[in-house]
Amino acid sequence: MRDNSVRSSLLAGRSVVSGWLTVGHPLLAEAMASAGYDAVTVDMQHGAVSDHELLSVLQAISCTDAVPLVRVPWNQPAQVMKALDLGALGVIAPMIEGPEDVEALVAACRYPPQGRRSYGPTRNAFGPGGFSPSRANESVMAIAMIETRAALDALNEILSVPGLDMVFVGPSDLSQALGGPPGADARDGPVPAALDRILERCAAHEVPAGLFCRSPHYAREMLDRGMRFVTVDSDVSYVRHGAATALREVRGA
Amino acid sequence: MRDNSVRSSLLAGRSVVSGWLTVGHPLLAEAMASAGYDAVTVDMQHGAVSDHELLSVLQAISCTDAVPLVRVPWNQPAQVMKALDLGALGVIAPMIEGPEDVEALVAACRYPPQGRRSYGPTRNAFGPGGFSPSRANESVMAIAMIETRAALDALNEILSVPGLDMVFVGPSDLSQALGGPPGADARDGPVPAALDRILERCAAHEVPAGLFCRSPHYAREMLDRGMRFVTVDSDVSYVRHGAATALREVRGA
Amino acid sequence: MRDNSVRSSLLAGRSVVSGWLTVGHPLLAEAMASAGYDAVTVDMQHGAVSDHELLSVLQAISCTDAVPLVRVPWNQPAQVMKALDLGALGVIAPMIEGPEDVEALVAACRYPPQGRRSYGPTRNAFGPGGFSPSRANESVMAIAMIETRAALDALNEILSVPGLDMVFVGPSDLSQALGGPPGADARDGPVPAALDRILERCAAHEVPAGLFCRSPHYAREMLDRGMRFVTVDSDVSYVRHGAATALREVRGA
Amino acid sequence: MRDNSVRSSLLAGRSVVSGWLTVGHPLLAEAMASAGYDAVTVDMQHGAVSDHELLSVLQAISCTDAVPLVRVPWNQPAQVMKALDLGALGVIAPMIEGPEDVEALVAACRYPPQGRRSYGPTRNAFGPGGFSPSRANESVMAIAMIETRAALDALNEILSVPGLDMVFVGPSDLSQALGGPPGADARDGPVPAALDRILERCAAHEVPAGLFCRSPHYAREMLDRGMRFVTVDSDVSYVRHGAATALREVRGA
Amino acid sequence: MRDNSVRSSLLAGRSVVSGWLTVGHPLLAEAMASAGYDAVTVDMQHGAVSDHELLSVLQAISCTDAVPLVRVPWNQPAQVMKALDLGALGVIAPMIEGPEDVEALVAACRYPPQGRRSYGPTRNAFGPGGFSPSRANESVMAIAMIETRAALDALNEILSVPGLDMVFVGPSDLSQALGGPPGADARDGPVPAALDRILERCAAHEVPAGLFCRSPHYAREMLDRGMRFVTVDSDVSYVRHGAATALREVRGA
Amino acid sequence: MRDNSVRSSLLAGRSVVSGWLTVGHPLLAEAMASAGYDAVTVDMQHGAVSDHELLSVLQAISCTDAVPLVRVPWNQPAQVMKALDLGALGVIAPMIEGPEDVEALVAACRYPPQGRRSYGPTRNAFGPGGFSPSRANESVMAIAMIETRAALDALNEILSVPGLDMVFVGPSDLSQALGGPPGADARDGPVPAALDRILERCAAHEVPAGLFCRSPHYAREMLDRGMRFVTVDSDVSYVRHGAATALREVRGA
Repeated sequence: MRDNSVRSSLLAGRSVVSGWLTVGHPLLAEAMASAGYDAVTVDMQHGAVSDHELLSVLQAISCTDAVPLVRVPWNQPAQVMKALDLGALGVIAPMIEGPEDVEALVAACRYPPQGRRSYGPTRNAFGPGGFSPSRANESVMAIAMIETRAALDALNEILSVPGLDMVFVGPSDLSQALGGPPGADARDGPVPAALDRILERCAAHEVPAGLFCRSPHYAREMLDRGMRFVTVDSDVSYVRHGAATALREVRGA
Repeated sequence: MRDNSVRSSLLAGRSVVSGWLTVGHPLLAEAMASAGYDAVTVDMQHGAVSDHELLSVLQAISCTDAVPLVRVPWNQPAQVMKALDLGALGVIAPMIEGPEDVEALVAACRYPPQGRRSYGPTRNAFGPGGFSPSRANESVMAIAMIETRAALDALNEILSVPGLDMVFVGPSDLSQALGGPPGADARDGPVPAALDRILERCAAHEVPAGLFCRSPHYAREMLDRGMRFVTVDSDVSYVRHGAATALREVRGA
Repeated sequence: MRDNSVRSSLLAGRSVVSGWLTVGHPLLAEAMASAGYDAVTVDMQHGAVSDHELLSVLQAISCTDAVPLVRVPWNQPAQVMKALDLGALGVIAPMIEGPEDVEALVAACRYPPQGRRSYGPTRNAFGPGGFSPSRANESVMAIAMIETRAALDALNEILSVPGLDMVFVGPSDLSQALGGPPGADARDGPVPAALDRILERCAAHEVPAGLFCRSPHYAREMLDRGMRFVTVDSDVSYVRHGAATALREVRGA
Repeated sequence: MRDNSVRSSLLAGRSVVSGWLTVGHPLLAEAMASAGYDAVTVDMQHGAVSDHELLSVLQAISCTDAVPLVRVPWNQPAQVMKALDLGALGVIAPMIEGPEDVEALVAACRYPPQGRRSYGPTRNAFGPGGFSPSRANESVMAIAMIETRAALDALNEILSVPGLDMVFVGPSDLSQALGGPPGADARDGPVPAALDRILERCAAHEVPAGLFCRSPHYAREMLDRGMRFVTVDSDVSYVRHGAATALREVRGA
Repeated sequence: MRDNSVRSSLLAGRSVVSGWLTVGHPLLAEAMASAGYDAVTVDMQHGAVSDHELLSVLQAISCTDAVPLVRVPWNQPAQVMKALDLGALGVIAPMIEGPEDVEALVAACRYPPQGRRSYGPTRNAFGPGGFSPSRANESVMAIAMIETRAALDALNEILSVPGLDMVFVGPSDLSQALGGPPGADARDGPVPAALDRILERCAAHEVPAGLFCRSPHYAREMLDRGMRFVTVDSDVSYVRHGAATALREVRGA
Repeated sequence: MRDNSVRSSLLAGRSVVSGWLTVGHPLLAEAMASAGYDAVTVDMQHGAVSDHELLSVLQAISCTDAVPLVRVPWNQPAQVMKALDLGALGVIAPMIEGPEDVEALVAACRYPPQGRRSYGPTRNAFGPGGFSPSRANESVMAIAMIETRAALDALNEILSVPGLDMVFVGPSDLSQALGGPPGADARDGPVPAALDRILERCAAHEVPAGLFCRSPHYAREMLDRGMRFVTVDSDVSYVRHGAATALREVRGA
């Protein structure tokens, strides 16, 4: 089983930049993972990455040094455990509503006695250095999304759950939950103040915070303000922006 | 069966810009095809698009107005006919060596009496306006690659083959065939002179010429010099360039 | 994002005929969708359409004018949201037991403030006319199945849930729940009286009702009796009946 | 390895009715194969059955008593041998031009000394009764299509090739090759006379003849005229005809 | 629909040996299923068998006489019903916590009035002898895993649930739940005593017990001690042990 | 692009042991590749590894230190080039008949001026250390099978083809070609003498020879006799032997 350099980076106070993969094809996954990111997050919630595609996508990432993380479609133990069995070193659970949800997430990520993850190493048995439950428990990250009003209201309780390794903010859902429009990189509306509060509470609880960003500039700014983990844009977005730019240039003005 | 707007554009003297798809995933295919290109070329030769993925990729393109073209792995009738049966409106055959290869390509693209395409409409039976062999024969484009020394030497004979709708230049293979390094958008080495000759001969034979390009600027320049069909960059390249740029910006200099 | 002509037809008082797709293959999906139905319902509950196949099946339907609907395996928000992210314009949730289930369904189908659908347009971002949460909220249909005794008992409460767009009756499960045998198109047993009651209550609540039918004749009769949405037979059934008929004829009597 | 009841039926003078499968989905394959046909022919030439789908389609057929036959995309030894390794009990090779093509087909179907099939039992090793080259050589059928003018001209030479088990007529390609329109079940144009000649020559050479038919009535008639193997319609055709009929009935006239 | 020889064997007092399949490939499934096991259990919980692969894996098993069983990822009705619709003749539900979980499992396995399985025969409609709900209710096995402390504590209540056909012990999870290390075939630690108790209680309730084993020797011993159903090792384990042994021998000592 | 440690081992006079993968599933591929072999050969000729599965299988191998080799279905340039584009570091071409076949194989494996491989790095662009045609030409191995009588007759000419990196003997086909029965590890019949001759000629031409073996003991013996590359058994064989052994033991004698 591989070490989780994202986890050790965060523990060492370094920041982490992750790619965001929404297309479940192993060639694209390896292309993303070899681009220089610290991690690649596979988005099974809104991306087009099916259960069937997950294994080969995670293997494609394992051809590189990037750490594979998975956003599961929902905070269900079977989904969390499957992603980990197939080699993810961290799971992001969406639509968390309160500390009970986080406790369930942590329990699904950790073998007893820290949790209730069912035993079956699957892919993890193949890697270098062998596999043990205690080693897995130390490598795997449990990451809760903060994107609902309920989660914002229960922030202190959520951040107090033992075993939570990071929170990750979904800006579109958070904005909608607070009455704003969807969209990342917001400088207006309800999100900036919410981010301030999240950063302040995370610092107090010593839990790193992450954020989904669109522009590198905004991501840079968020790292400077205390975010420890950022994702920048996505595979599909690179393609669409790249294509639009190219078409504009080739067709002239 | 849909009309082929690429063919009618070329016949009407307009130029065509195509995307270049190398990842066989239907979400990415629809993302590319909806980006505004006139056509999307599915690269089964060097791309990671398997026979199995071709159908859903072509359907994804059919969700948009872009014309689906396929570069087959090799100039074999079974590959050419399969791409057409699944809905491609044109086939690019690589590694053409001379007029016999082009005749075989044209024969595979056209039903009798113009060719020897085996009858079986498959997907084409579903579309609007019904299907007929004569309509298919008028819609489908047979496109020969010019990328070997033999093809360059036989250029006049190739361009004289009845039913050839376009030639498409592969700059890396052409360069290597002429003793140069691989790579697109060359301004040095043996390729520029070869392109001049190809453009001149195509004009004389009234056969449109196309070129694989990397940068939009170069593609624009080639259109200005007489190329009628250009592809710009590729899905994977957009992703890798987008990621590299983003990482540079987010990590600062 | 495309408009939902099924929803506008129902609002305009017209009836809708849907195909029923149980095989997750994109060629068959396009064959069904181009056959002239107003909609094609993809049956992920009892059909052999896996999560992995859903994307390409929905794209195949989008090659035609038929409206793609999905019956999810279970009324779970992750399944509902995934079907919608991949382009379904309506979701049929099976085994509804009462108004709480319908509220959960509606919440999963609608972005805030009408619901709790998580934001991520995925395929919907590609279509003509752009995408907005409000437009999606107006296009997408939430459809609850009436097929359990509990649902029949709670019919008024179910039909009172704001945002419910249609109910759809599963005759086999409904019959079994009421002590009858499974099977569609029943003229005996407990189903006919239950259908009468459902039609009467739907009329009172101004919620359209739909029904799974086997024979066109029965479907026609049900439309005449007030059903607004019928499905007729299924892909596999067409094949098996077609084959049986052909074999009988070719082998003689 | 299973016995080939199609081969023994033909040797015993009985006729054979085969289904025609064009969709590469294992549920549909099992639906077809369990419908009562003597055989199911998987059409890899014009159907949407990819190399990747072939294994599971052949296994689905093996869940029933129907004999699995494969029409390969082209008469290439790798395609022929792969279909046989995966469990097909007969291969139909399209676009045969003369006796050399048939010799190549037979060689690919038979292990030495009768042919040049490469040894590797793959799926055939699993079945009841074990596997041996001689048993495989006796079970597997080599079937040449008669659908080009060249094949019609070389009919006697083709029928004289040792090891040829059957010829199969593709009526659309044959018609086009003879200057007629595509289409099955022709009663006019050049096909009926060609069929007469094929039947007469096959009888003389004691090689059974087969034909692709659309209507059961025509298939019945052809059996009565001496055809020994008929296919009737196809999966997609059953679906499209079933849907069209149902829609006509449900919408009224 | 096929008969369930595992169920009849257990009812007749015979013991059952099952293979354990963790790789979702239909060739490997047929290889396992034809090896002589009474049953093959497809492990969707810890194995790499996706929803998409399940159908073809079950069909591959149906090419043989082995009975197909499925361990679902989680005790959810949609997962249980899907496995059964696709042809599994028994479902093993993991992480059972008490009698309510078993009641839910049984309800998902049985049509009314014994349960709440939704009607839709899917693959089961194709098999010999037709399909009926009562026949399905008699064939299908509901199997609860005993592997949590809660399940062990509630053993009597679990074994008293009507319709439970077998319990199956997961030794790694059970050991961890009781404070021991993971691993099968334990002779030390907390598992042996727990197995004694399970065997004693199962005998009292006349419910057969099964166990996941690694070594054939241990499995033999467990059968002798009263286990009625054992699985021995797994596909991946055979490969890894086979490879390790071969490499040791070929490289010499 | 990775280095090819098999090639450097052979050049350095060391012997190589390769696994033989016949099931196209990425979990099994990683299980095999992590078992300690120097290389894993993916058998696309007789194995059930489709074009579609090849990419993810090669990536799975790249998660380990084993060198990925591919036996293509046939010696066709498109198949050879595709395997290399997807990351294979060597190609084994079956059914070689003479030096022209080997020249075609070498030409497909090498970029100009050494060969005619078409340029398109695909996966190779992602790896460490970048990609260049000259580096690829030095890493990639062209391996010709000796398994036909024609190849045996033309052995000197074959071994004289520049750029041939190894020959690999297929014992079953070779035996059949020489009038013997199929099967590996033969000690009788025509194969042993043929192996002697091949080893002697290979030594004279300084071309390493490889052999497909079943038992580790035989493989060890062959290495001792001068074979430089052996494969031992296969994934499916490990499973079937493992299962048979386990069943015998668990059921007692």
